[in-house]
Amino acid sequence: MKPHGCFINNENVILSTDLYQLTMSAAYYQYNLDNNINEESDDIATFELFVRKLPKNRNYLIFTGLEQVIHYLQNAHFSDRTIDYLRSNEMFKNIDSKFFDDYLPNFRFDIDIWAMKEGTFFFPNEPILRVTGPSIQSQLIETYIISVINYQTIVASKASRIRNVAKDKLLLEFGTRRAHSPQAGIYAARASYIGGFDGTSNVVSDLELGIEASGTMAHSFIQKFGEMKSFEVFYEYFEDKTIDLIDTYDIKEGTLKAAKFGNKILGVRIDSGDLAEETKRVRRLLDENGCEEVKIVLSSNLDEYLIKEILDKQAPADAFGVGTELVTSSDDPTLSAVYKLMDYNGHPKIKISEGKVTYPGKKQVYRFFDEKGKFEKDLIALDDEKVEDRGVPLLIPIMEKGELVYDLPTLEEIREYSLKNVNKLPNSYLKLEQIKHIDLEISNNLNELWESLKNKYE
Amino acid sequence: MKPHGCFINNENVILSTDLYQLTMSAAYYQYNLDNNINEESDDIATFELFVRKLPKNRNYLIFTGLEQVIHYLQNAHFSDRTIDYLRSNEMFKNIDSKFFDDYLPNFRFDIDIWAMKEGTFFFPNEPILRVTGPSIQSQLIETYIISVINYQTIVASKASRIRNVAKDKLLLEFGTRRAHSPQAGIYAARASYIGGFDGTSNVVSDLELGIEASGTMAHSFIQKFGEMKSFEVFYEYFEDKTIDLIDTYDIKEGTLKAAKFGNKILGVRIDSGDLAEETKRVRRLLDENGCEEVKIVLSSNLDEYLIKEILDKQAPADAFGVGTELVTSSDDPTLSAVYKLMDYNGHPKIKISEGKVTYPGKKQVYRFFDEKGKFEKDLIALDDEKVEDRGVPLLIPIMEKGELVYDLPTLEEIREYSLKNVNKLPNSYLKLEQIKHIDLEISNNLNELWESLKNKYE
Repeated sequence: MKPHGCFINNENVILSTDLYQLTMSAAYYQYNLDNNINEESDDIATFELFVRKLPKNRNYLIFTGLEQVIHYLQNAHFSDRTIDYLRSNEMFKNIDSKFFDDYLPNFRFDIDIWAMKEGTFFFPNEPILRVTGPSIQSQLIETYIISVINYQTIVASKASRIRNVAKDKLLLEFGTRRAHSPQAGIYAARASYIGGFDGTSNVVSDLELGIEASGTMAHSFIQKFGEMKSFEVFYEYFEDKTIDLIDTYDIKEGTLKAAKFGNKILGVRIDSGDLAEETKRVRRLLDENGCEEVKIVLSSNLDEYLIKEILDKQAPADAFGVGTELVTSSDDPTLSAVYKLMDYNGHPKIKISEGKVTYPGKKQVYRFFDEKGKFEKDLIALDDEKVEDRGVPLLIPIMEKGELVYDLPTLEEIREYSLKNVNKLPNSYLKLEQIKHIDLEISNNLNELWESLKNKYE
Repeated sequence: MKPHGCFINNENVILSTDLYQLTMSAAYYQYNLDNNINEESDDIATFELFVRKLPKNRNYLIFTGLEQVIHYLQNAHFSDRTIDYLRSNEMFKNIDSKFFDDYLPNFRFDIDIWAMKEGTFFFPNEPILRVTGPSIQSQLIETYIISVINYQTIVASKASRIRNVAKDKLLLEFGTRRAHSPQAGIYAARASYIGGFDGTSNVVSDLELGIEASGTMAHSFIQKFGEMKSFEVFYEYFEDKTIDLIDTYDIKEGTLKAAKFGNKILGVRIDSGDLAEETKRVRRLLDENGCEEVKIVLSSNLDEYLIKEILDKQAPADAFGVGTELVTSSDDPTLSAVYKLMDYNGHPKIKISEGKVTYPGKKQVYRFFDEKGKFEKDLIALDDEKVEDRGVPLLIPIMEKGELVYDLPTLEEIREYSLKNVNKLPNSYLKLEQIKHIDLEISNNLNELWESLKNKYE
């Protein structure tokens, strides 16, 4: 047997989905064929992606992952291999051969996408992405776009909380090894950068996305050479970029060895112990030994709570390397992002499963700011509803009939937009504690539509 | 700007790592060059991968992901693009040009790998994979192999708990959309299958790994056609493979509509409400309407606790679709898998950072069974130590100098091995509650080595 790498690529990505998306799409195809329905004009569905509720401890979310949705829509196709696979699947035996011979080989997404800009903060029930197009296509993309947006949004939102408490300290994402797969590692680097981190240790993110990768040294480096010699070897090759790891044996000894390089090295890293106390001690030792410019980098299971505690204790840390807790969003690794049918051929749609409420119809989100530019409230309204002029619509056109109509920002621009945006939130939203009330309204027309459809079914 | 898909592939996977792995490896190269050290004979490191502690609520872990490590070791290389990237990185300016012109272009892994078989249960501090080879190579792989094994092990271990409570019910992995990236989706399908699931909804896992994909229908399908018609359309095309989703509006009404097909459909799915109560009600309705053979599939935020509760209440469910809680391991999404230097050129190595203990030296794990074949205890010993004959060594040779020397099992075989293995665990390990004592011993020789090295540094 040959080992398999489990990579997702442009060829198999179209099948990176749940089987029911393909069976439903095939059924839509066959039904249209059997009933002479033109999918481009008479079988048009609008779906919206939204989050049902905030994860634990979150007061807002940061919308992230749109660029990967666009990449998917521009590139996904059915190769011969994927078509052969589907054709040979017993499940599809009643589907006309034209589906496999003609429809799938020529399949390209030509749907409309409206979405928030990446880096926008948002709240539950707000549509963050809206898809309009033939049922087959708009159904097919559900699983993939959720999987792309769900995780990046989780990480960006966690990163934003960490940025809020870390103020202007340097924040580095160090979590590649604990992310839920190598691809999750690059997603985590991207999303935490958007959420306000300064860099990552993940090299492939530097290569592919241009997020600056940085790093220090591992304990194994120290163990191999011995402490003093390892510092010397590293300095010889990496000079002023050297960050010495000083906790392999004894932090005080390690600090004194690093201090022999004076201010010529960039910093030292502490990866264990009582980080606040050690930071104070190490800073004192460094200063006493003429190393006033040497920075202190902290790591070891850091999250927003620990960083706040360390800074509240006035520990003079310069940078934080954050890994596991950020990239797994360990206090709540789930996000209830869902993708629901809102309109079919111009008719608003509803679903009333117990405990799961969905506002029907094609919608828009308007954001209101006060005179000082601070966030005042969001309003979810029907797309064709007249809304007070000063509300800024958050959903903007991204793709029209499969063509990109949006000027894709750079990652740097998305990060700046996100940071500027979050700064408009009142302080209560920026605290680590759960906020009591979110300033989110549902328009009268939308409430009325929801009531009338609900009554129809009850 | 062109949108980026963030895919990991054979070309960039070598950089799917932390920058410090590359800087340390470059330093090892340069140091060997400067000091005339032969990396193949005089710079040999042994690293071991192990887990520091069990995640919350786990009594054992299932080792998973070895196949992807092998794939990586066989395929990873430095392409021109990745070499150009490294060469242009300011960090590497003092590294000899031979590194970029000669060493990296010809780089292939030729290291030794010993590991447990995939599907083996294991405990904290046990080496699950051991790497021996030139420092550069054995250091370089750290991040990638952790990222591959860490997550799959998390999911397989959670899946195994779910299998333990679900007994012989059908278990389907439905979590692709909530996994932490599309690649995490395929990893989750693979790992949950190894942990004892029967199938997945993830189609790319069926295509690439042969794990049977299955599925039902979404609420959008019902909303589009209306409930009765959607059941008719689905049945027309998918016949006896039809599973009707019955909770879009009213479960009783939905059941009665599905019951019109008698025993000709495969099943119904309930995705909301009090699942135990609804299952009993739906079963009664189905039976009263001559649908005794129609199966009931449950979904909606299921985990091992909810499934146990449902079955404890005697709800006649036939199958469970488990998503978010499984693929994010939501009660504890982290695993403290670490990769530590244990031996350098024949000398055992140690690290004594506060609160983080690491047993030194090249090790082996021996497993003991009682007369009835039940698990008795594990013993961690030095690799060259004489151990009682009936102990079964768990680490076996996988690769020698980069060549596969292990007959790679099929996924089916791994799954069977895993299930048979877990069945050897005493009942106390199989309960959902945390076990008080794990039968794990450290050999005398290993304890002595640890004490003597510790004293040397203290």
